[in-house]
Amino acid sequence: MKTAGGTSVKLVYRFAEGGASMADLLGGKGANLAEMVRLGLPVPPGFTISTEACRRYYRGDRQLPSGLWDEIRALLGEMEQVMGRGFGATDKPLLVSVRSGSRHSMPGMMDTVLNLGLNDETARALALETGDRRFALDAYRRFIQIFAKVVLRADPEPFEEALAEARERGGVASDAELDEEALAWTVDRFLEIAASGAGRPFPDDPWEQLQSAVLAVFDSWNSRRAIAYRRHHEIPDDLGTAVNVQAMVFGNRGWDSGTGVAFSRSPATGERRLYGEYLANAQGEDIVSGARTPHPIEELAREMPVIHQELAAAAELLERHHRDVQDIEFTIESGRLYVLQTRSAKRTAAAAVKTAVDMVGEGLIGRDEALRRVPAADLAQLLLPRFPVSAKRRALSEGRLMARGLNASPGAATGAAVFDADAAVNASGGRPVILVRRETSAEDVHGIIAAAAVLTARGGITSHAAVVTRGLGKPAVVGCAELRIDTARRRMSVNGTQIAEGDLISVDGFTGEVFAGGIETVPPDVAANEELAVLLSWADGERRLGVLANADTPADARQALTLGAEGIGLCRTEHMFFQRDRLPYVRTMLTAAREVSEMERAVEESRLALEEATGVAHAAAGERLRAAEERLEASVAARRFREALEYLAERQREDFGEILRVMDGRPVTIRLLDAPLHEFLPPYEGLLQEVAVLRATGAGGAALTDKEALLETAKALQEVNPMLGHRGSRLGLTYPDIYEMQVRAILQATFDLRREGLSPQPKIMVPLVVAAGELLALRQRLEGVAQEMGELLGRPEPIHFGTMIELPRAALAGGRLAPYADFFSFGSNDLTQMTFGFSRDDAEEKFLRFYLDRGYLIHNPFNTIDELGVGRLIKIAAEEGRAANPELELALCGEHGGDPASIRFCHDLGLDYVSCSPLRVPIARLAAAQAALGEAEREDV
Amino acid sequence: MKTAGGTSVKLVYRFAEGGASMADLLGGKGANLAEMVRLGLPVPPGFTISTEACRRYYRGDRQLPSGLWDEIRALLGEMEQVMGRGFGATDKPLLVSVRSGSRHSMPGMMDTVLNLGLNDETARALALETGDRRFALDAYRRFIQIFAKVVLRADPEPFEEALAEARERGGVASDAELDEEALAWTVDRFLEIAASGAGRPFPDDPWEQLQSAVLAVFDSWNSRRAIAYRRHHEIPDDLGTAVNVQAMVFGNRGWDSGTGVAFSRSPATGERRLYGEYLANAQGEDIVSGARTPHPIEELAREMPVIHQELAAAAELLERHHRDVQDIEFTIESGRLYVLQTRSAKRTAAAAVKTAVDMVGEGLIGRDEALRRVPAADLAQLLLPRFPVSAKRRALSEGRLMARGLNASPGAATGAAVFDADAAVNASGGRPVILVRRETSAEDVHGIIAAAAVLTARGGITSHAAVVTRGLGKPAVVGCAELRIDTARRRMSVNGTQIAEGDLISVDGFTGEVFAGGIETVPPDVAANEELAVLLSWADGERRLGVLANADTPADARQALTLGAEGIGLCRTEHMFFQRDRLPYVRTMLTAAREVSEMERAVEESRLALEEATGVAHAAAGERLRAAEERLEASVAARRFREALEYLAERQREDFGEILRVMDGRPVTIRLLDAPLHEFLPPYEGLLQEVAVLRATGAGGAALTDKEALLETAKALQEVNPMLGHRGSRLGLTYPDIYEMQVRAILQATFDLRREGLSPQPKIMVPLVVAAGELLALRQRLEGVAQEMGELLGRPEPIHFGTMIELPRAALAGGRLAPYADFFSFGSNDLTQMTFGFSRDDAEEKFLRFYLDRGYLIHNPFNTIDELGVGRLIKIAAEEGRAANPELELALCGEHGGDPASIRFCHDLGLDYVSCSPLRVPIARLAAAQAALGEAEREDV
Repeated sequence: MKTAGGTSVKLVYRFAEGGASMADLLGGKGANLAEMVRLGLPVPPGFTISTEACRRYYRGDRQLPSGLWDEIRALLGEMEQVMGRGFGATDKPLLVSVRSGSRHSMPGMMDTVLNLGLNDETARALALETGDRRFALDAYRRFIQIFAKVVLRADPEPFEEALAEARERGGVASDAELDEEALAWTVDRFLEIAASGAGRPFPDDPWEQLQSAVLAVFDSWNSRRAIAYRRHHEIPDDLGTAVNVQAMVFGNRGWDSGTGVAFSRSPATGERRLYGEYLANAQGEDIVSGARTPHPIEELAREMPVIHQELAAAAELLERHHRDVQDIEFTIESGRLYVLQTRSAKRTAAAAVKTAVDMVGEGLIGRDEALRRVPAADLAQLLLPRFPVSAKRRALSEGRLMARGLNASPGAATGAAVFDADAAVNASGGRPVILVRRETSAEDVHGIIAAAAVLTARGGITSHAAVVTRGLGKPAVVGCAELRIDTARRRMSVNGTQIAEGDLISVDGFTGEVFAGGIETVPPDVAANEELAVLLSWADGERRLGVLANADTPADARQALTLGAEGIGLCRTEHMFFQRDRLPYVRTMLTAAREVSEMERAVEESRLALEEATGVAHAAAGERLRAAEERLEASVAARRFREALEYLAERQREDFGEILRVMDGRPVTIRLLDAPLHEFLPPYEGLLQEVAVLRATGAGGAALTDKEALLETAKALQEVNPMLGHRGSRLGLTYPDIYEMQVRAILQATFDLRREGLSPQPKIMVPLVVAAGELLALRQRLEGVAQEMGELLGRPEPIHFGTMIELPRAALAGGRLAPYADFFSFGSNDLTQMTFGFSRDDAEEKFLRFYLDRGYLIHNPFNTIDELGVGRLIKIAAEEGRAANPELELALCGEHGGDPASIRFCHDLGLDYVSCSPLRVPIARLAAAQAALGEAEREDV
Repeated sequence: MKTAGGTSVKLVYRFAEGGASMADLLGGKGANLAEMVRLGLPVPPGFTISTEACRRYYRGDRQLPSGLWDEIRALLGEMEQVMGRGFGATDKPLLVSVRSGSRHSMPGMMDTVLNLGLNDETARALALETGDRRFALDAYRRFIQIFAKVVLRADPEPFEEALAEARERGGVASDAELDEEALAWTVDRFLEIAASGAGRPFPDDPWEQLQSAVLAVFDSWNSRRAIAYRRHHEIPDDLGTAVNVQAMVFGNRGWDSGTGVAFSRSPATGERRLYGEYLANAQGEDIVSGARTPHPIEELAREMPVIHQELAAAAELLERHHRDVQDIEFTIESGRLYVLQTRSAKRTAAAAVKTAVDMVGEGLIGRDEALRRVPAADLAQLLLPRFPVSAKRRALSEGRLMARGLNASPGAATGAAVFDADAAVNASGGRPVILVRRETSAEDVHGIIAAAAVLTARGGITSHAAVVTRGLGKPAVVGCAELRIDTARRRMSVNGTQIAEGDLISVDGFTGEVFAGGIETVPPDVAANEELAVLLSWADGERRLGVLANADTPADARQALTLGAEGIGLCRTEHMFFQRDRLPYVRTMLTAAREVSEMERAVEESRLALEEATGVAHAAAGERLRAAEERLEASVAARRFREALEYLAERQREDFGEILRVMDGRPVTIRLLDAPLHEFLPPYEGLLQEVAVLRATGAGGAALTDKEALLETAKALQEVNPMLGHRGSRLGLTYPDIYEMQVRAILQATFDLRREGLSPQPKIMVPLVVAAGELLALRQRLEGVAQEMGELLGRPEPIHFGTMIELPRAALAGGRLAPYADFFSFGSNDLTQMTFGFSRDDAEEKFLRFYLDRGYLIHNPFNTIDELGVGRLIKIAAEEGRAANPELELALCGEHGGDPASIRFCHDLGLDYVSCSPLRVPIARLAAAQAALGEAEREDV
């Protein structure tokens, strides 16, 4: 190791010096190249400029680190020796590729330069040496174009235009068909374009080219796109990238040459066979960019059987070595195979699940490893919506199938067509959009992130669009050649159908079909995925955390069961009140309730007076009480209130009965009414406008009076900050009849089912509690109802009673609440709102996205639990609650219950279960197992 | 001590057995009676049934505790021996008083029975013995009336009606003038009324009377009124009350008898002289009820000089003994003085301050004790509003002075007249009310609490109304004989002026004047109170906590200085934007701001692109940036925005300059704009209605277009939960120009004042921060502004920069925020809202009052810091903030900063200062000293 000078350390490594364990220093690509050299695979010679060099570059204010250039020159000198070539030599010139390679694979984010070292003279020398001037010119024009783009950052359009002109002149359809003449013309034209763009001649000194290229790779580490990608994938900013400099081999040296990408198994399905695609007489860029649609790897077996065999053996070797599916770049130069790169393959969730389970069967990995291999969040892909067969059949019969492309990333989506990334970002705030591009590149990533799906005209299943969408778990159809896109006019035509920007289209990433117009989507049939079932059963064996579902209807409950939920952790009752047949009764109840509650307080006053009274006054007070009770009993308001309540009680009994029946034997936690009452009235603003208009136009009469009355109630219930308002338990205490009715309905439904021999397990949960006094009062009141019902039905049914912890005060008072609760369930959505003072309804659009973009907040606290604030409150409540009541059951039922990072947090905290939306139950099961495995590992140490 | 039986303990104590130290067991009254016996004062014999007996009564489900009755009978036997009389005896009958006496004085809350032991026979015996049948009948009718009321809980009205009829029959004006005949008739009538009300004869067995009376005292401990009083005064519910049974002496035995109340100093002013009032030929009830207006004690000196001297000596002895002002009840029976009770006198804050300071001068108490003596919250009385001289002169010249009464409790108030307690409670939700009653009793307490002031027709300065209002610090005028109140018709007439319920009246509790109509009030002249100045200077010497004020205007700042504020801890800038001349500019700024911020983001994008660009593209990117900047510069929106901002900057420079000038040399913490922007627009609802009407009526044109545009902006800024919305630092970051303008204005004003040789000390505070990323970004941006300004003005001015901690997340992230803050100021109002999820705008009315009434919450967390939740968050932030930044200054600037209990919390936590509204600064100074003394005491241990 060269350590001359205080701070000088070795910054550059020969491939032969490295290995897989050195990925931090050499980047993933460099480490894998080194490892392949160790394995004896045919890798062109080269060296890796370490990530440390990159970090020094940034620490040194973007100056070339001292000593780096000397090391590079020395190792390039060695390469010249090995290759018997000279860098910039006018005989046998050495050409190199310069490629980025950071610790984490960031496809398309970093820039690559091929054929570096070419200038007019070395190009001429190459032509002489190979006797193939066409090849030399082709390499040269490729180099100029890519160098101008990624190093000089020139506008790529003029180069494309020049190429198109060359093809036209030559009368050919593809670049591969351009002849020497055309290529010579292209090279001249490219040099002119590059010079005029930069304002100075294209650099012809190979050393200058190399230095600029290395710096360009370093710079691209901090491009906005790279930063955005890292933020999205939570990769630290200070890792830096390595740079790989490697002797060029040429896939474009004729029809016995070629280049391709091979997978040791299918990254789409996980099927175990050599998979991939290649292009004869082409360089890597041709594949990755999707500019030419490549051929399936099976054709290679026909065309070059020996090469195919060699490649298959290399893939097998690499997969066994790395014990994971490999994504291998290869080049064939004049009939000789070179392996340029290998890495663990990005794959769909389906492929991840299948390969993980298969590899356990093959003895390659253990079950723990299989469970760790599948990123839990990726299971969302398997839970992606599909188009139902019937809807697709209908769309087909309507002639709406426009085209078929490659099914590059699974899922189905309907959305408005948009034709560039910015349009996708701008439109995505509201409705879903589908990004339609000829092909995508790194410049489109922000649009892909914003879009519901991607559709491209060109490119294969390893094209940029395909790779990125698979990573994001979004549907994509690529290489759909029938698309004629006119970006300038914001429209496309497909086999005669015209689609303007904003028109609905539908994309089926499972099949590659593209439809005009919308198609409704349905959730996927998870049960049919056998490998998933196996993996999740292993997960269930590992996890300690229970997984329940949030489900409000029997249909939700059934789906939750199918997906493996162990019960319902949150059954919200709001929607039950919103149903069309019930809303009139709810409104009647509300308008009467205010009057009734006044009278009830009078009765209560009299009752208290009676308790106090002694002697003579006893009789008088008793009489007052009876009178007040009779007045209440006989009032119209009370009658209407009672009738409405009875109607709703009957409906609730049915609601709860159905859900408890579906979940027979499993817990069903029913949250009593939480919504502020004004939500059940027509919108205040609308009423206000209607009344204003009725008054102004002199219309009115009865219509006006009715509206005014409704407006009055709406006004009384109106709140400045409904989120902080009169809802949840606050309603339960001030309007006790509603909660009492709900509990009666629950107990009645339970009784009905028990008589049928079923085993319903309801739990009653009260929301928005802040103090022990509240919880105790509610518990006593509702236990009173339970006792009454027990006597009425002749069968006592003790209630299982708990509370949401969704306000900071509740969390901080956990130790006080616990003695009165059988369980706590953390309502992490509201808890996050209150802890941050972020109104979910407004924050996202108004400032939260901006905060995340700027890094003021690292995570969106509505997606992943904010451990510093919200998590700490949960921890306080959990620990102090358990200390005060060791029997206390602890759960989390916010949307965080389906987020793997938050699930790990819950596991580490020792909660009993999480409850999440049914579709996220499989994710939660796997994430919970991974959390347990993580813990187990730590315990092993 | 009698301890026969496992649980039997001594429950009754002779006065001679007790002493001042036994107040927990004997109640305040019993302990003081015992102490007076020790001091050799003339106290009628008796005994005290202990609070333990009362507690056992409640523990035993309201059964007479075992053994109690035996003890009572035994000690009553002793009393018979001492007095040479017999209880129920038909010669020399013994009469007793039965009085409640709990640990804490709860005037009027508990019930008292006098002359117990009378029936037809003992009354006859008393007449025979004294030779005064009139006296005996008078005692008897008093006994029947009071026993019926407090023990039998009969309706008191029929008794009053009977008395009125007796006066009419006898042709006399007062009860004292009734002759034997009339009294005999009254007794018969009373017995009939009591029997018909109770449905059985009035109890004539003295032992039954005694037992019922003792139980009635026990029961009254848990009357709703007593509970309400305890809740208001934060007295625990489980103390119980003692019962004092004492031989009766008679102030109504003729004109050489009498009864009265004496104070060792004036409870209204603190003046050092015997003070009080008495009534000849009367019993205690006559004084307390205010039924007859008593004479000042000075007349006693004329009428019975020896008695007066004896009384003065007793008062002096008791004051020296207790080292506090005494409130003494006495009775003169046939020329002989008896002292019936003594206790520390309730007093006005003015009296409390003066006596405390005087007693230090007299060597009675030390300064520490003086500081502890004055309840800090009571100073609010000294800070009560007054009518300004000019306004009163005007009211006088308009002939609005209706009457004069006794100035029973200081302060001045205007409000709607209401004629009973319930009306006061019902009306007080909105506007202030003045409770007008002939006289008040315990039944009126809830109304007094709800009212802004009290006015009565009868009663003296020790009447119920006077005592209760003084305790509550509310103005009262009592004994205003000119009032003719017609409660049934809800009106009164005063010297010809008719006042209906709801009409405005004004009451001056300093002078006793009563006016028709409203008079505006002004804050008091605290500076003129010399004793207060002395006391507060002592407090300043003791306290460790700084006291600053919340002040938004120069006038507020001046007032704060006068009241002793050491600076401004919170200067809100919202009102500055609301001023009439500025609002149009604010609106212009807002409508332009959205457009400008779009363009600014484009510039920002270009700038970032430029930073990234290398080589050729540099030039192009630079050009794009310049073009974007020029576009921004030239746009109409930007021009309007700039102009509005400049106008506002100039105004802000004046605002800040004036306040900094007033506070020269003292810190002024300026909070940058916090309000959501939509608050500066016309109300959304109003716009909505206007536009709806304009559209419906087909009017419109330009008017409609304008309104629609405004509505559009209002809609864009509209939020579902503004409290959780886009405000505070969130605005500061998304619309940076506003904060930058404010900081420029602050620095400019600072510069201006420095040039004048002044020493302005501005601090900049940003609100609503949740994360370190936010705080750092704001700090960097605003320090950038400071640097620019420093260069511009040629004088660097480093900014003192801190943040409000008003969201739970901020508190929990205190350790992360602290490195970027010079200070934290706890915004306890918002912190309470978020922690509880209580919207202050709605909670009070909709459920919080109900929660407090029912005891679901013990304290209103908006009044006193909720230590369990909010306090814990503050503690976390303070401790972790200080750990991360030992230089961090800590303050609290919510309304809790003026609440003594919360101030103690801040002191104990080691905060540096509190900031409260100017009028509460003296309270905070004293409370801070008391907190320090409390701590010092603990340290002594």
